[in-house]
Amino acid sequence: MPPFRRARAACTLSGPLVQRAFYSLPQTNLFMAKVMALLGSASDKPVFEKAAAIFKEFGVECEVHVASAHRTPGKVVSLVESSDAEVFIGIAGLSAALPGVIAAHTIKPVIGVPVDSKLDGLDALLATVQLPPGIPVAAVGIDRGENAALLAVEILALKHTELTKKLFAYRAKMAEKIAKDDADAQKW
Amino acid sequence: MPPFRRARAACTLSGPLVQRAFYSLPQTNLFMAKVMALLGSASDKPVFEKAAAIFKEFGVECEVHVASAHRTPGKVVSLVESSDAEVFIGIAGLSAALPGVIAAHTIKPVIGVPVDSKLDGLDALLATVQLPPGIPVAAVGIDRGENAALLAVEILALKHTELTKKLFAYRAKMAEKIAKDDADAQKW
Amino acid sequence: MPPFRRARAACTLSGPLVQRAFYSLPQTNLFMAKVMALLGSASDKPVFEKAAAIFKEFGVECEVHVASAHRTPGKVVSLVESSDAEVFIGIAGLSAALPGVIAAHTIKPVIGVPVDSKLDGLDALLATVQLPPGIPVAAVGIDRGENAALLAVEILALKHTELTKKLFAYRAKMAEKIAKDDADAQKW
Amino acid sequence: MPPFRRARAACTLSGPLVQRAFYSLPQTNLFMAKVMALLGSASDKPVFEKAAAIFKEFGVECEVHVASAHRTPGKVVSLVESSDAEVFIGIAGLSAALPGVIAAHTIKPVIGVPVDSKLDGLDALLATVQLPPGIPVAAVGIDRGENAALLAVEILALKHTELTKKLFAYRAKMAEKIAKDDADAQKW
Amino acid sequence: MPPFRRARAACTLSGPLVQRAFYSLPQTNLFMAKVMALLGSASDKPVFEKAAAIFKEFGVECEVHVASAHRTPGKVVSLVESSDAEVFIGIAGLSAALPGVIAAHTIKPVIGVPVDSKLDGLDALLATVQLPPGIPVAAVGIDRGENAALLAVEILALKHTELTKKLFAYRAKMAEKIAKDDADAQKW
Amino acid sequence: MPPFRRARAACTLSGPLVQRAFYSLPQTNLFMAKVMALLGSASDKPVFEKAAAIFKEFGVECEVHVASAHRTPGKVVSLVESSDAEVFIGIAGLSAALPGVIAAHTIKPVIGVPVDSKLDGLDALLATVQLPPGIPVAAVGIDRGENAALLAVEILALKHTELTKKLFAYRAKMAEKIAKDDADAQKW
Amino acid sequence: MPPFRRARAACTLSGPLVQRAFYSLPQTNLFMAKVMALLGSASDKPVFEKAAAIFKEFGVECEVHVASAHRTPGKVVSLVESSDAEVFIGIAGLSAALPGVIAAHTIKPVIGVPVDSKLDGLDALLATVQLPPGIPVAAVGIDRGENAALLAVEILALKHTELTKKLFAYRAKMAEKIAKDDADAQKW
Amino acid sequence: MPPFRRARAACTLSGPLVQRAFYSLPQTNLFMAKVMALLGSASDKPVFEKAAAIFKEFGVECEVHVASAHRTPGKVVSLVESSDAEVFIGIAGLSAALPGVIAAHTIKPVIGVPVDSKLDGLDALLATVQLPPGIPVAAVGIDRGENAALLAVEILALKHTELTKKLFAYRAKMAEKIAKDDADAQKW
Repeated sequence: MPPFRRARAACTLSGPLVQRAFYSLPQTNLFMAKVMALLGSASDKPVFEKAAAIFKEFGVECEVHVASAHRTPGKVVSLVESSDAEVFIGIAGLSAALPGVIAAHTIKPVIGVPVDSKLDGLDALLATVQLPPGIPVAAVGIDRGENAALLAVEILALKHTELTKKLFAYRAKMAEKIAKDDADAQKW
Repeated sequence: MPPFRRARAACTLSGPLVQRAFYSLPQTNLFMAKVMALLGSASDKPVFEKAAAIFKEFGVECEVHVASAHRTPGKVVSLVESSDAEVFIGIAGLSAALPGVIAAHTIKPVIGVPVDSKLDGLDALLATVQLPPGIPVAAVGIDRGENAALLAVEILALKHTELTKKLFAYRAKMAEKIAKDDADAQKW
Repeated sequence: MPPFRRARAACTLSGPLVQRAFYSLPQTNLFMAKVMALLGSASDKPVFEKAAAIFKEFGVECEVHVASAHRTPGKVVSLVESSDAEVFIGIAGLSAALPGVIAAHTIKPVIGVPVDSKLDGLDALLATVQLPPGIPVAAVGIDRGENAALLAVEILALKHTELTKKLFAYRAKMAEKIAKDDADAQKW
Repeated sequence: MPPFRRARAACTLSGPLVQRAFYSLPQTNLFMAKVMALLGSASDKPVFEKAAAIFKEFGVECEVHVASAHRTPGKVVSLVESSDAEVFIGIAGLSAALPGVIAAHTIKPVIGVPVDSKLDGLDALLATVQLPPGIPVAAVGIDRGENAALLAVEILALKHTELTKKLFAYRAKMAEKIAKDDADAQKW
Repeated sequence: MPPFRRARAACTLSGPLVQRAFYSLPQTNLFMAKVMALLGSASDKPVFEKAAAIFKEFGVECEVHVASAHRTPGKVVSLVESSDAEVFIGIAGLSAALPGVIAAHTIKPVIGVPVDSKLDGLDALLATVQLPPGIPVAAVGIDRGENAALLAVEILALKHTELTKKLFAYRAKMAEKIAKDDADAQKW
Repeated sequence: MPPFRRARAACTLSGPLVQRAFYSLPQTNLFMAKVMALLGSASDKPVFEKAAAIFKEFGVECEVHVASAHRTPGKVVSLVESSDAEVFIGIAGLSAALPGVIAAHTIKPVIGVPVDSKLDGLDALLATVQLPPGIPVAAVGIDRGENAALLAVEILALKHTELTKKLFAYRAKMAEKIAKDDADAQKW
Repeated sequence: MPPFRRARAACTLSGPLVQRAFYSLPQTNLFMAKVMALLGSASDKPVFEKAAAIFKEFGVECEVHVASAHRTPGKVVSLVESSDAEVFIGIAGLSAALPGVIAAHTIKPVIGVPVDSKLDGLDALLATVQLPPGIPVAAVGIDRGENAALLAVEILALKHTELTKKLFAYRAKMAEKIAKDDADAQKW
Repeated sequence: MPPFRRARAACTLSGPLVQRAFYSLPQTNLFMAKVMALLGSASDKPVFEKAAAIFKEFGVECEVHVASAHRTPGKVVSLVESSDAEVFIGIAGLSAALPGVIAAHTIKPVIGVPVDSKLDGLDALLATVQLPPGIPVAAVGIDRGENAALLAVEILALKHTELTKKLFAYRAKMAEKIAKDDADAQKW
């Protein structure tokens, strides 16, 4: 078997089944909505971390994998097709094919996060958002991992209604933060 | 009461309650998932029509309104806050604030469609997608009304599982269309 | 009452009435032209400070608030609608909806300052300037807080004619600065 | 006297004094707020006409001239320095120096309208808005003559308060137009 | 079996094996270098036709297929992995993932042709050329089907040396065309 | 001798020596300042014609050739190196290497005119103007053949002082044209 | 006299007549070709210094001034109209009106150097190069002060033929530098 | 002989014949596929080094030269025309004419690597990829030296089939690296 194919087979077997990361929530939380986040490269970690912090705060389980649409295409397909995630997030820079490739293999909502690697991220933004008719990707702003996670939570909240209250609370917290910033501004 | 305020009040009262448009589905369809689509201008109609065709095909009810984030901001807020839609779609060109303003007033998923009016639509794309941390908008491609609708259906399908089968069928139909195009290509 | 709405109510009551910042002018100055500057985020402070320095120099009172068009939309509306400012300034980055949202709620002149946060500020510039027909925003250059303030002063000077002399003096001072730079250049 | 200089002298004498165009208002209107609009080229007329229609509707006198910052710089300076206009509008495409040159010769508010001639108007937009510190220009959107006029009216209304009511009425009219468009949309 | 998977299987079986198009060369030509061109959409045909004309002129066999990286990803993979082509060409617009996806599934040279569909083709250009380290795509200019074919011929000529002479002849013919244009220019 | 080299030799011999086009001036004009204009393609003719009209008006001889930096590089070099022109103009679109290649082979001033062929001419503009340190090209605006010619005349006028008067006259004529446009504007 | 006008008068009298900087050449050099370089701001000094080094090397006298097209427009006009320079150089960033304003006031060749201050210098590049028909500016690359100077020398060399030899020598020196770099590359 | 021509002659004689750099492979490797890489400037070295590392790993000989299309055009032509390389690589920034000039002088495949020097490398990218019909260049991503080398290897592998196995191994190694990164991600 040639090396190229073996790599692909390998990830199908061991990848999605054993290598899961849980942003674990308190024991008492029985809520099990699942998001799978794929990163095109380990260097996209800082963008993912913004998403992970949101998922942790909302108690939403997120499985994360590094898997490249170009370097490990079979792994991406295996992960997506064998996953029971309800929402996918693809985080990638440059010619960011990852979100579109995920979307090509699932009918679940796919969120794309363009990463600024070259050209201020304009290349990744266009590659993420300009999908052809028929295969939508939900693009968020450049490097906006937190918004990808919040969008995922909003989507999940349609079904998992216990998230609704947390979303309202999050917005209130933001408003409070801005109120505090505004109060500080009165002393500038 | 000054005219500016009266206009706003007027739309709160009569707007969302009486002026609904239903892309009605066959009588036998009891499915009632709701999408609200807001257009920043009547000139955005061609982009909306691509979405409407999808909603009709999937039997998803879509209420549509023309409401501008800049010219009728109160109407946008009234429509959004009084709606029981599960997904919102904002379609706008230029400094496309509409999707972001919708998102500011709901915790439901908001999909933004940038419309090419000037600068090939780059202005609308950036305004739609570059939201600040905390308020996500799911941007689709420039003038991609059909993808906004398909994304809405994918989101709704998480809860309304009868849509899942239709999504698979839609993808199969696309693949068949391409297979036919490919067959034609053999005669080029 | 859900948290999202409470935040909004809160800012209507206490925001504009109590939290004013005065870039105070000498006691003897009875001149009371008012500008309200809104910042989309506390991180826009450095751009505002360029404006504040100008207002201080011209003895023009400027009230400042941090208020986001996306995260605290109700606060923005409350601040604008309850204000007696003669000119508004909106300072924001990314999908800079703030100046347009202010303009949607007032018929007073609104100046927009795009802030460089991503894409060298091109996103904010386009969002600030490409308003639809009917709702103008006066955009100044990227990060150009000082020019926003000077434009505000020029506008106020039409009515508050004592500012005219100061504007001429400011230009003369600039010319002197350049004359000095030119003199220095003769020694390069 | 060389031809280049004669042309300049000529325009100083006859230009601003005799060649005025009045978008005249009803006799009974004693209101005399003045705007001067300069077009860099006769080809910018369609953009100006959007402004002229607004001025006519608001009963605001607007003097118009074709004068190029590059081809007739002396004429621009003469027109600006000898004018008693309260607001200036510069309409120009390409390397749109006109608004900035006007601003260099007056301390009155200057509004710039970038015209799409090449590069979708991006060149004119950047030239109009990216003024250096100290000399502000109030840029409106590409080809947005109507917004330049509305901004001028908003500025004039600070002093000429009878315009305030008209501005509210204009906004109400826009809201009604959108309400009508929305009603039509219910029949799509 | 769900429709989505059946479509994929179908193309694996019948696609590459039976649906070949030969830009056939004169009977006497025994030369069998093979190129496979994939079009993301039937609408990309005009760009492909420029390539086809070159292949016909050089007597190089080119198999063509319509296959979308997003709508029929399995078909793309099947076509590429089961092909014995020596060079691949991917022609696509918008978020042009096709060339990169081909490259992800072969170690043969892959040429990408960005197609102008939106944004003057800038989106497709960036998606085609900005591949991550490790998976190269050889991008040619926007809509430049003829150059994709000529590059393919240059690559094939390294091994199939009979093409070398034709490449020199083609260049001479271009030079003659320009010489004729130049002669015509003397009469302008 | 291979065809590729023969084409090059051919143009060296017959090209610049016999194929000259004279935008001839009145017999009595003894003035012999020479400009050589090279067009990358016959399709650039409309841009050249704007230059030709200027040269005719100023009585400046301009030799014109179609010669491509990419398709007939030897011809470009031969034309440039064997020419006694005092100023060169290179007119080209896309990856407009022509002006830079001319500049690489002469120390005479080289003017580059970027032609809008794709991407609104932005590609040609950047290729024309962004030369490396050491080899200047004088870029004029996109499709601005007339400005290339006027710049050439300004350069020639330093030595051929009889052109100075014509340049003043041309500016006066422009000012008169604008004065006429301005007079017409008073009737709008 | 108001301060704004006094500043302008002041620069007419003392500016160009007394404040000259000479990049002086060896005593024996009687050559007196003159270039005037204007900088829009003292912060453009680093770009000018690249030009100054070239002028020093070529023994070309260059007068330099800081003068802003927007902040000291009268000074720019005075300097240009009272100068006997044969070539002008305008160095400016942002909405770089300076080169075009110089060109509006002289029929001598004007070279523009766009400076990277915001948007990677794209704003300044477009403002410098996209002049309207009739008023050419010779744009060089972003921050390319050395190329502005070399272009000026090439222009001057048409009349001052002793510069020709130096231009050839400069190119030879560049070639030697590259030959040395190439030799070093053999050891990489 | 003038200095400009002497420099050119010099590089024809000594350049390609003596100054070769070998990224030497193990003695036992008899494989002699040749690539010639030209750098427009010594400052492009870091981009070349990524390519050199790949060539070393694959045991492919690569001759490297610093040679500028603008500053040493004759050297570029000499190197290309006298080379027996099977693939050429041109690495250049700004108005990156180098790859196109190489392509103008050979019918061998030419790979272009745009280098980020100004404008985030967008200028170099467009200059590299937007070649006119007839002269193809295979562009890779901005600063993507490694991909240029991998593309060269893929091209060479068509003829030198021993490289095929190495290409598969390289891909497997990348997949393993990503698998390791993914394993690490499970501990984030």
